[in-house]
Amino acid sequence: MNTEKLEQFREKIRAELDRVVDFWLKHSHDNQYGGFFTCIGKDGTVYDELKYVWLQGRQVWMYCHLYRTVKRFHRTEILDAAISGGKFLRQFAWVPSAGSSGKCAFCLSRDGKAVKVQRTIFSECFYVMAMDELARVTGDQEMQAEAERVMDLLVHWVRVDPSGLGRLQLPGDPPVNSMAVPMMLLCLVQQLTEGRAELAGKYRELGQWCVQQILQHVQRDGTAILENVSKEGKELPGCQGRLQNPGHALEAGWFLFQYAVQAGDQELQRTAVDKFMEVPFHKGWDQQHGGLFYFLDVDGHCPTQLEWSMKLWWPHCEALIAYLMAYRHTREPRLLERFTQVYDYTFSHFPDADHGEWFGYLTQQGSVALHFKGGPFKGFFHVPRCLYMCERLLDSLLGDSCDS
Amino acid sequence: MNTEKLEQFREKIRAELDRVVDFWLKHSHDNQYGGFFTCIGKDGTVYDELKYVWLQGRQVWMYCHLYRTVKRFHRTEILDAAISGGKFLRQFAWVPSAGSSGKCAFCLSRDGKAVKVQRTIFSECFYVMAMDELARVTGDQEMQAEAERVMDLLVHWVRVDPSGLGRLQLPGDPPVNSMAVPMMLLCLVQQLTEGRAELAGKYRELGQWCVQQILQHVQRDGTAILENVSKEGKELPGCQGRLQNPGHALEAGWFLFQYAVQAGDQELQRTAVDKFMEVPFHKGWDQQHGGLFYFLDVDGHCPTQLEWSMKLWWPHCEALIAYLMAYRHTREPRLLERFTQVYDYTFSHFPDADHGEWFGYLTQQGSVALHFKGGPFKGFFHVPRCLYMCERLLDSLLGDSCDS
Repeated sequence: MNTEKLEQFREKIRAELDRVVDFWLKHSHDNQYGGFFTCIGKDGTVYDELKYVWLQGRQVWMYCHLYRTVKRFHRTEILDAAISGGKFLRQFAWVPSAGSSGKCAFCLSRDGKAVKVQRTIFSECFYVMAMDELARVTGDQEMQAEAERVMDLLVHWVRVDPSGLGRLQLPGDPPVNSMAVPMMLLCLVQQLTEGRAELAGKYRELGQWCVQQILQHVQRDGTAILENVSKEGKELPGCQGRLQNPGHALEAGWFLFQYAVQAGDQELQRTAVDKFMEVPFHKGWDQQHGGLFYFLDVDGHCPTQLEWSMKLWWPHCEALIAYLMAYRHTREPRLLERFTQVYDYTFSHFPDADHGEWFGYLTQQGSVALHFKGGPFKGFFHVPRCLYMCERLLDSLLGDSCDS
Repeated sequence: MNTEKLEQFREKIRAELDRVVDFWLKHSHDNQYGGFFTCIGKDGTVYDELKYVWLQGRQVWMYCHLYRTVKRFHRTEILDAAISGGKFLRQFAWVPSAGSSGKCAFCLSRDGKAVKVQRTIFSECFYVMAMDELARVTGDQEMQAEAERVMDLLVHWVRVDPSGLGRLQLPGDPPVNSMAVPMMLLCLVQQLTEGRAELAGKYRELGQWCVQQILQHVQRDGTAILENVSKEGKELPGCQGRLQNPGHALEAGWFLFQYAVQAGDQELQRTAVDKFMEVPFHKGWDQQHGGLFYFLDVDGHCPTQLEWSMKLWWPHCEALIAYLMAYRHTREPRLLERFTQVYDYTFSHFPDADHGEWFGYLTQQGSVALHFKGGPFKGFFHVPRCLYMCERLLDSLLGDSCDS
């Protein structure tokens, strides 16, 4: 692979990032109540005014991160929108009556009334990401303290006592190590400790614990990454135990790889590549139609998720980051081949040439199945994070930055 | 349409019902712990031992109903299985710690441990159906009393105080008239009062209330059936308010029609046909690929449900019952044409010629997307109920019964 090809990737990715940022700046801001519309149609029309909290937090984080680290996005318009989103979250996200000690809502009305509360940790996780990154760009110490306060609550729920989540403890539903949980906490450890030596110590053991929890998902003599395992790291019975989510494994792969690079852990880098990038590719790539399946059963049964064979945007985003990051550090040609294969599928299927941004949900055959740009689970996050990280990795590979 | 064609329908439907009953008799019984396996693969293999309570209740009901009303199914094997399923439900379905006064689980482990509890009424509804029909075949008065006890609890939750369901009351989530609730209660009223004059009085007002609640879903000057409306019968904002579920509307259609026939209410019969059978057909039939869409947005936005364009077995089952029932009473040729169109699509797409039973989930184009026969929401219910009711309606149209 020559420099010219890498330059082409970068040019395309850079232009796509600009287009995606423009789409959300133009269509998603609620100038009346603050925060962001997240249900946005093909052409930018808001088709529902509900505000999904995961997506509010993610958009605040992404805006701040672009503002903080990319010169061409260091724009008042972007900072102001992030601050408005953060204010909306601080004011409305918490539901004091939920769980045993208050929880973040999953979904709010346009004017901030709680519509739904999930009994999981993820609204709070994206709230922490938003608060921490906002604190970094504004210098607001109180906001950083808020991020740490909620982080400590999350760790308590996950490692000490889950009762605050409001879930009934049922005898047939013992606690499970679900990959999303340690992945998410590892992501937050990276977020909170970046450039802060004083916090690195506080969260060091947590980071190591997350890595160990993620590694428990390598099962069947290293030939499969299973989404759910027992708390002891054993395979669980039934569909839950056999579930594979290739996109999630790839995302865990680059989280682990990034952690391993920072820790100087060569063995963990190797595991991240061999187990969390190669295995999901071999299991998850659709040989007939291309693209990554959403869910698979490790024994070849039909998954019960109706969308199992659909091609979703985010697993492809995570795959692009994973393979390019691993290539950047190892220079193994095979990893650039994987990147190129996913890139070709992704850029020929997901972006909307007419109105900008990406379609999120394709049929197994690769045609658009749902044509909105934003929905309950698709906001300003996976696409721009992927494009941003790939642009940075290509800058690094090419030995320069063309950001101006 | 001549008698010969109706005879052909009946012959096919009768044979198909026998095949479907055989499939579940052979593959779904848990002779060790009682109750039924519901996760059953293409060839009959049990791929998960979880026992979904909706499906336990439905299978008990269907077995008893076939045993009670169809001579060729008046078999000890069927009755014994129903009794075993009922015993499993009585013993394990209730979770005393759920909600504020106990709830039925949504899902149990093979040996009856609670795995999941939903904060809705439906597990209890199918429990009532099971207990009532079991009481009818066994003559067990105590079981009938149990059905009435839970029915009264359901009515309390729906009409007086929903707090027992365990749902948090949130300011952005006001109470909604969701079509499933009055439909389900109307179905239970019909179940409990059949042939019991003493109960007809007790539940008369409830039946009338259910009908009124269902009629509130006729919106937009009668041109749409919307799945969710306000408690005052007004359209709700956003995706929730614009949602159409053609299969559900058709199911409500035959519930209403049946009720109207019994009540001798001609006007309600007309409404059931014109609004709940014609409208969902015009809105919901896929002109390009055939079959009924699962979900649609009344304003033509893309639904956010990933499976919106898939063709599911049960809406087609409900459509077959609706059109044949309406034709049986009105003899309007248009309704038999509808039946024939749905019949042709259904019988050429859903049944599995190799292993029996029906596939449940097709792509928009009509190919099999998930090839299991039983799953978390597909059990021994919609297919046999449809075939059973269509056989009876054809018997009635043909002026005889070929059941022996």
